[in-house]
Amino acid sequence: MTIPKTMHALLQKHDGYSGTQTGIVFETMEPFIEDAQIAVPEPQEGQVLIRTRLANINPSDLHFIKGEYGQPRRKGLPAGFEGVGDVVAAKGSYAEKLVGKRVAFSVSMDGSGSWADYALTAAHNCIPVRPDMQDVDAAGHIVNPLTAYAMFQIVRKADSKSFILTAGASQVSKLVTSLARDEGYRPIVFVRRREMIEPLKALGAAHVLVETDPDVLDQFRAIARQEKPRVMLDAVAHQLSADIFFAMPNRANWVIYGKLDASAISARELGQFIFMSKSITGFWLTEWFRDTPPEEQIRVIGEVQQRFVDRRWTTDVAEIIPLKNAIEKLPTALAARNGKILLSP
Amino acid sequence: MTIPKTMHALLQKHDGYSGTQTGIVFETMEPFIEDAQIAVPEPQEGQVLIRTRLANINPSDLHFIKGEYGQPRRKGLPAGFEGVGDVVAAKGSYAEKLVGKRVAFSVSMDGSGSWADYALTAAHNCIPVRPDMQDVDAAGHIVNPLTAYAMFQIVRKADSKSFILTAGASQVSKLVTSLARDEGYRPIVFVRRREMIEPLKALGAAHVLVETDPDVLDQFRAIARQEKPRVMLDAVAHQLSADIFFAMPNRANWVIYGKLDASAISARELGQFIFMSKSITGFWLTEWFRDTPPEEQIRVIGEVQQRFVDRRWTTDVAEIIPLKNAIEKLPTALAARNGKILLSP
Repeated sequence: MTIPKTMHALLQKHDGYSGTQTGIVFETMEPFIEDAQIAVPEPQEGQVLIRTRLANINPSDLHFIKGEYGQPRRKGLPAGFEGVGDVVAAKGSYAEKLVGKRVAFSVSMDGSGSWADYALTAAHNCIPVRPDMQDVDAAGHIVNPLTAYAMFQIVRKADSKSFILTAGASQVSKLVTSLARDEGYRPIVFVRRREMIEPLKALGAAHVLVETDPDVLDQFRAIARQEKPRVMLDAVAHQLSADIFFAMPNRANWVIYGKLDASAISARELGQFIFMSKSITGFWLTEWFRDTPPEEQIRVIGEVQQRFVDRRWTTDVAEIIPLKNAIEKLPTALAARNGKILLSP
Repeated sequence: MTIPKTMHALLQKHDGYSGTQTGIVFETMEPFIEDAQIAVPEPQEGQVLIRTRLANINPSDLHFIKGEYGQPRRKGLPAGFEGVGDVVAAKGSYAEKLVGKRVAFSVSMDGSGSWADYALTAAHNCIPVRPDMQDVDAAGHIVNPLTAYAMFQIVRKADSKSFILTAGASQVSKLVTSLARDEGYRPIVFVRRREMIEPLKALGAAHVLVETDPDVLDQFRAIARQEKPRVMLDAVAHQLSADIFFAMPNRANWVIYGKLDASAISARELGQFIFMSKSITGFWLTEWFRDTPPEEQIRVIGEVQQRFVDRRWTTDVAEIIPLKNAIEKLPTALAARNGKILLSP
């Protein structure tokens, strides 16, 4: 096949970190990304070039383009950490084995983002996708489903069938909720909007609490006395997260995997780290890949694909937006929070 | 020998927890303890009665009598968690083997405190003391030196020769500092009073920072870039502790083992748990005894006694106060902070 010389892409407009912590709300995309025609990148040793089928949009992408994520921006390079596509060129012996394969991919630090007709990434950041897995599922294969499945291993290691999820309406929380239900666990889920109560109960939440209820902490304390949750998987990390943590029983572990809320927290009960053996840790999929043996990674990837193929997990797609309309349409689509938004070349 | 019917003791004046967090400053002792003559307790199954030689005073004792420690007070029982003395009576086969032995002891939940002529505790809370170990060292054998030695194992497991100590003038910090120096580590020590700089450098601190210096955090950042400390052993848990933690490099672990400062902390950089793999945990000697295999406990106890016997560790005694003068003299003696204060029957 012929690879064109140039391609359409959404480019980062800044380098490095912004130093701000404004979160993932956007009135407009223009300060952060721009629509452009640029040269198609060429694979270097160990890299593959992928013709994008669909690109994903995660909270991490939105933090990133604002300069508020754990990796520095690179002005003039396409944004987008994740997608699905076909490997069309490669360099290096392992990379070349992937040519012609459909892969889910995340973009390596030395690569070129997925919000483009073509993406460039390290060959080992590609996961070949089973033929019976849909593109809309494969586009978001890595960041959220692998995070959900890998983080759930932390819950499994704790000695309670109950645990806590925040940001209940997020895709990760929904994936964890249904996985937990299938395994006989009892998730306690916090949501911002009352209309999420029933959908989450239908997915498998044992309890759903609305963050804005004035007595939400009292409701939680009553539930915690029965359920004794030991782990909180938290994507928000705001004051309520801290208050929940300090209301949890002995040996509670607050696992922070996202900071959706940019505000500071206040805490007084630090004696609980001593006398109640509590702990705060973090989870980042990048670290999980570094720390987890390859055979365990392969097992988890296989489980994740199987769950999508047999429809125990599904991707709730709100909208697929063509790249050329993204800057105009994204602010409204993101604000609606109706499900996944994907980008198509 | 004859055991008398009654004894002199300093009794707790309240039950349970106070709900306050006022710290260990005392204008007067009268609201919390009283001087009294009470019956000498009798050992129950598994317990020993100890004729006190010297009783220790730790921050935990002072938090406890105020109702601000991790165990509930029991009105009318003697205070005091630690001491050294001779076992004069016992019940149960293991306990009876200790009769006639000089032991360092901590007081079990079902026991009777060390601030008394006689103390009662579980036999397994007693550590027989080598004949060549002095009473003033044995009186504080368990709480501080075992904490120092056991906590230092956390530093050993981290991949840096540098680590942080707060409350540098405390006995635990001094013990850790000299142990660390002997093992080739480079402690960064925070103190409240400038006059502690030289004594701590003499003990083995690589850097000593004064908490009240306006640029203390900038000083720390410059040092941290060179030294890359991964562990902070923190007895204070106030805002500066939090600020130090968030200024530490990747994979930093904030180990809270005391909460000397009752104020709340504020924190914004919770993303560091995710992207920098940071963590907050606690250390409590009671949990260490629960979680550590007996042979490792015996090894650590042997090391601790050896360090006192060969004078690598010494106890810096400011004053030995007779029980009958304690209520009058303690507030002034504690405020002077010149070293260890012990109680004698």
